[in-house]
Parts: sequence; structure tokens; C-alpha cells
Amino acid sequence: MPTAFQDCYPEKFSHCYGCGKSNPQGHRLKSYWDGEETVARFTVRPEFSGGVPGHVFGGMVASLLDCHGTASAAAFAYRAAGRDLGDDGEFMRFVTASLKVDFLRPTPIGVELEIRGRLGGIEGRKVKVSLSLGAGGQACARGEMLAVQFRE
Amino acid sequence: MPTAFQDCYPEKFSHCYGCGKSNPQGHRLKSYWDGEETVARFTVRPEFSGGVPGHVFGGMVASLLDCHGTASAAAFAYRAAGRDLGDDGEFMRFVTASLKVDFLRPTPIGVELEIRGRLGGIEGRKVKVSLSLGAGGQACARGEMLAVQFRE
Repeated sequence: MPTAFQDCYPEKFSHCYGCGKSNPQGHRLKSYWDGEETVARFTVRPEFSGGVPGHVFGGMVASLLDCHGTASAAAFAYRAAGRDLGDDGEFMRFVTASLKVDFLRPTPIGVELEIRGRLGGIEGRKVKVSLSLGAGGQACARGEMLAVQFRE
Repeated sequence: MPTAFQDCYPEKFSHCYGCGKSNPQGHRLKSYWDGEETVARFTVRPEFSGGVPGHVFGGMVASLLDCHGTASAAAFAYRAAGRDLGDDGEFMRFVTASLKVDFLRPTPIGVELEIRGRLGGIEGRKVKVSLSLGAGGQACARGEMLAVQFRE
């Protein structure tokens, strides 16, 4: 198995409801490399419906893009620095400065969603990530994220 | 008690995890008029933390803005049409076309958050809503939404 980006976060940063390995009640989204892009796959459970059952609620779509986006930002920054995932146990943690989501069509519940990230650019501690979320090969949402490396 | 916007949605549109009155597992956010603006108040439970415990995860911030935003869009459109909340049981349902969230600072968990909406403009079936989310009088996030009236 390849290593998920979120599994490289230091323990103290691993409690996110959307993607933290140490949050047993959360979604525990897992993001991976796929060539130059990043990918996560996730099937939403029925209770996370929008107004009309059968479709994912908007906040969940934003959540999947957000967690995949910050993990992707860390991975892109890591690779740009010539390092490998988890090579020193000190994977960088990025936080979202801004996220724009375009909802293209309703996102179905109960089928596997594919969330993808593409590097938009790196400038110092800032990473731009272009995101998409689709089902069955059809795009349901697009996202543009500006992520910033967290400093303690 | 004033009537919450979400309690005016027809039953078939009331299953949203973020704000549907008929989703017992969801957050059931409630939005109200406050003069010319709209307001919702919500205290996030500890499991919805971000990477570091004590702060709300990004997807939850987006979710609160999204659900308050679409409910506000419906209320603004209703008022612009010279109608009152729930006067005919056929409250309009709006969906999000796009939502941009700027994360200004970490959003604390366990304290009451205030989410506010301001009308940006109405054009046919489209309503623009400016949103904010704050804690203790301090802004934590800002949002800009384009909502569209749902057509069956």
C-alpha cells in the first residue's frame, strides 16, 4: 500500500474530523500521489445528504475538497523540496487561507467519489491547488485553494 | 419564538445534514432575520475539530456558511417578493452555485459562533449573499455565495 499523505502528519496535527487518522468519529479521508496529481476516493454515507436525499450536502463537498487540498499542498511542497513522503516523520502541515468551490451538478451519495488535486504554484509558504470532485467520470464540483504552511 | 428559515422548507427539501429539520443525525442549523441581515448561532462539538484539537475543521466552517447562505438567499428572495416567511408553506429552496471562503483565523470549538448574511444582490433566480462567521465578536471566516433558486 502507498502511504496516505494524512498518515504522515505528526500526531498532534492528526485530529481533523475530515481527514485525521486520530479522529475515530471523523471521515478519515486518505490522499495519495497519482503521477503529478493527487487523488482521494471516498463514498459518502446516506446521513450526509443535502436537502433532497440521494445527494451530498454542500458542506461535505467543501470538506472533501478542503482536506484533500491541504494534504495535496503539503505533498506538492514536500516534493518540490526534493523530499519523499514520511522520510523524516516531519510532514509539513498546511492550512487553508481560501477555498472557492463551484458546484457544477448534484454529487451522488453511495457511489465512490474521486477527488483530485493539481499544483497551481508554490511561492514561499503558499501553495495553490486546483481541485475537482467527480463521480463516475463526471465532474460534480471544482475548487481553487490557497494553502499556507502552518507555523507554530 | 421567531420562525427559522429552514423550518419553512417543504418536507422533501428538509433532509440536509447541515440544516435539515428532518435529518436527526445532522447539525440542524437554524437561521433567522436580524433586521436587514440574517443570523444563525451554533456551538460546534469537540469531535468536529481540525488537525489541532480546540479548533473547528475547515469543512465545518464551510458547511455553516453554506447552509446559512442558501437559507438567507431564500429569505432575501422571499422578502424581495413582498412575502412573509411561511405564509403559504411553499418556501423557496436555493442551492449553491459557488461559495468562496476566506479563513481569517482559527475558529474555536465549544463557544457559540455567530454566522451572518447580508444581501449582495438579486438577479432573476440568482441571489448573492455576503457571509461572515465569528466568535466572541472576532471574525474567523468570510464567505461570498452565489445561490440559485432550485427548479424541479
